[in-house]
Amino acid sequence: MIVFGSTGSIGVNALALAATKNMKISALACGENIKLLNEQIERFKPEFVCIKNHKDKSLVKHKRVFVGQEGLEKILKECEDELFLNAIVGFAGLRSSLKAKECHKNIALANKESLVVAGEFLKGAKIIPIDSEHSALKFLLQKHKNVKKLYITASGGAFWKSKIKDLQKVSAKDALKHPTWEMGAKITIDSATMANKLFEIIEAYHLYGFKDIDALIEPKSIIHALCEFKNGSSTAYFSYADMKLAISQAIFKKHNTKILEYIDFVKLSGLKFYRVNERKYPIFKLKNELLNYPSLGVLINAANEVLVYKFLKGKCGFLDISKGIFKVLNHFGIPKLDNILAVFEYDTKVREYLR
Amino acid sequence: MIVFGSTGSIGVNALALAATKNMKISALACGENIKLLNEQIERFKPEFVCIKNHKDKSLVKHKRVFVGQEGLEKILKECEDELFLNAIVGFAGLRSSLKAKECHKNIALANKESLVVAGEFLKGAKIIPIDSEHSALKFLLQKHKNVKKLYITASGGAFWKSKIKDLQKVSAKDALKHPTWEMGAKITIDSATMANKLFEIIEAYHLYGFKDIDALIEPKSIIHALCEFKNGSSTAYFSYADMKLAISQAIFKKHNTKILEYIDFVKLSGLKFYRVNERKYPIFKLKNELLNYPSLGVLINAANEVLVYKFLKGKCGFLDISKGIFKVLNHFGIPKLDNILAVFEYDTKVREYLR
Repeated sequence: MIVFGSTGSIGVNALALAATKNMKISALACGENIKLLNEQIERFKPEFVCIKNHKDKSLVKHKRVFVGQEGLEKILKECEDELFLNAIVGFAGLRSSLKAKECHKNIALANKESLVVAGEFLKGAKIIPIDSEHSALKFLLQKHKNVKKLYITASGGAFWKSKIKDLQKVSAKDALKHPTWEMGAKITIDSATMANKLFEIIEAYHLYGFKDIDALIEPKSIIHALCEFKNGSSTAYFSYADMKLAISQAIFKKHNTKILEYIDFVKLSGLKFYRVNERKYPIFKLKNELLNYPSLGVLINAANEVLVYKFLKGKCGFLDISKGIFKVLNHFGIPKLDNILAVFEYDTKVREYLR
Repeated sequence: MIVFGSTGSIGVNALALAATKNMKISALACGENIKLLNEQIERFKPEFVCIKNHKDKSLVKHKRVFVGQEGLEKILKECEDELFLNAIVGFAGLRSSLKAKECHKNIALANKESLVVAGEFLKGAKIIPIDSEHSALKFLLQKHKNVKKLYITASGGAFWKSKIKDLQKVSAKDALKHPTWEMGAKITIDSATMANKLFEIIEAYHLYGFKDIDALIEPKSIIHALCEFKNGSSTAYFSYADMKLAISQAIFKKHNTKILEYIDFVKLSGLKFYRVNERKYPIFKLKNELLNYPSLGVLINAANEVLVYKFLKGKCGFLDISKGIFKVLNHFGIPKLDNILAVFEYDTKVREYLR
């Protein structure tokens, strides 16, 4: 397996799982956490290694260190492993997804932004989603006909129990306290704003072709998706909230070993579902527009990335994230994406606009 | 379709569904409700009709009226329809299931007693269960490998909210007030004692070959079964409590029309699961023994039938049902069922013993 984003939450979990099955790890790539990368190199002895910055090259304990996007793409071309785990965070992961498609890799995709911004251009790629909701949907959908509607669930994020009026003054520290999932910083903020769920809806559309899809808040994060059938029945997918399961479903061929604890249904107290309140999560208002015009994904994602990092650095308020996104959409209208270059151009333009 | 038990709850619902698709109904059979049978004859114009008692023959508005078990078996032999709905109540339905197997019919089986008492002898029959739990299990199981455990749910029956000490004095009228399902009298009592769930567990064993199966009480009767997988995930099957869905899944080939209302997940308040309390539902103590010695089914079923009808007639108390079953099991031990005749012999012996 080729692992990009090896030192992040998904990467670390994936390597731990891979170790349990003695999976060969041929390539590791990370950003700036060289200390952890060196530990991973020692443990997994990969043939290829890639890091983000030239300045760190001498610190890496490996004979063959590639650098930057060019390095990542070289690895995808040279390394013969069929399975590629893309756990790079944000827009930066797109080029690797495109290259992996070109190289006919099986893409275990944790970088949902690839689909959000360029789903149309990844058509035909062999993608297995690493997202608990999409992994759940895949399992529920199987080869079923007669599906009427899909639901993915949301935890509600860090501010599920907060009052709308208090969101004005919340800090990054507050927003990073996710109630049920342990994840990286970016996705934890995206969970608090519901941008993550908006992205997951368009991700599901690109993966499974359904437009009749909605999100429901299930605060325990134990049900990840629901599939409604035309005859009035529905199925639900349960597991404890731990990314290991979705990762295992993407990287393993067999699913006959215990990954997570079995659910104690009797201990589950009062499962409930709530509608997403668009006053509290204004970003979610964009759902139908995004499903109707998926090309909006590139604008929303770029604006969201810029604004989330601003917020994490204390340079803007929590509510400024959604406000900024709406401002960007008003300014740019609906992008016409004739080719993949247009995606990169729009991404750049949005970032410049917000600077 | 051939419909036995046409005037009962399942039969009436099945005919209503069949009418929506203009399904041809070639045969109708019922017990004593000749008035309703005549209405059904007028509506569906079946080729064959069968009733329980000779004395009613002249009341039936049909040229060709068969009578009794012999009549039922003649119909199964003569009628060429492939689909046979067996909605006869109790042990009385067994002979028709056996005959239908012999005639290679597709058996839509609402008569779960057939499997409870003679599951081994129905091996190889083409059975599609009409039971919300088994219909749910079938849907959840699909062709999945890696299943670890199955759960079917129970509503808890009429006395779910009653105290154990009050069960001594409850009447048949009390026991017939089922909280969530509208069903016939026999099964409603079986639901209050949990005998129904015990039967469904052995039914599931005969249908799907799993011994690791348990029941959980889900008082809303909106989740009907759960399937737990080896990796720690689980799936659940939801629908509103209405037998029409399970019937439609057994008798229709396509499932692309709306049978029940779609579930409003947001309106569902607090889904919870409870263990079956064996002090309240003593019959359920027999679960493991029955799974280990499925031949006990014939004893439990015969005793239960006799005692439930006694209770319905006010001739014994509610708790006497389970007491009587344990007495029968103590008396008879584990039956050795070398052939199908032994099933009938044990059934008769138990009934005589309890007389």
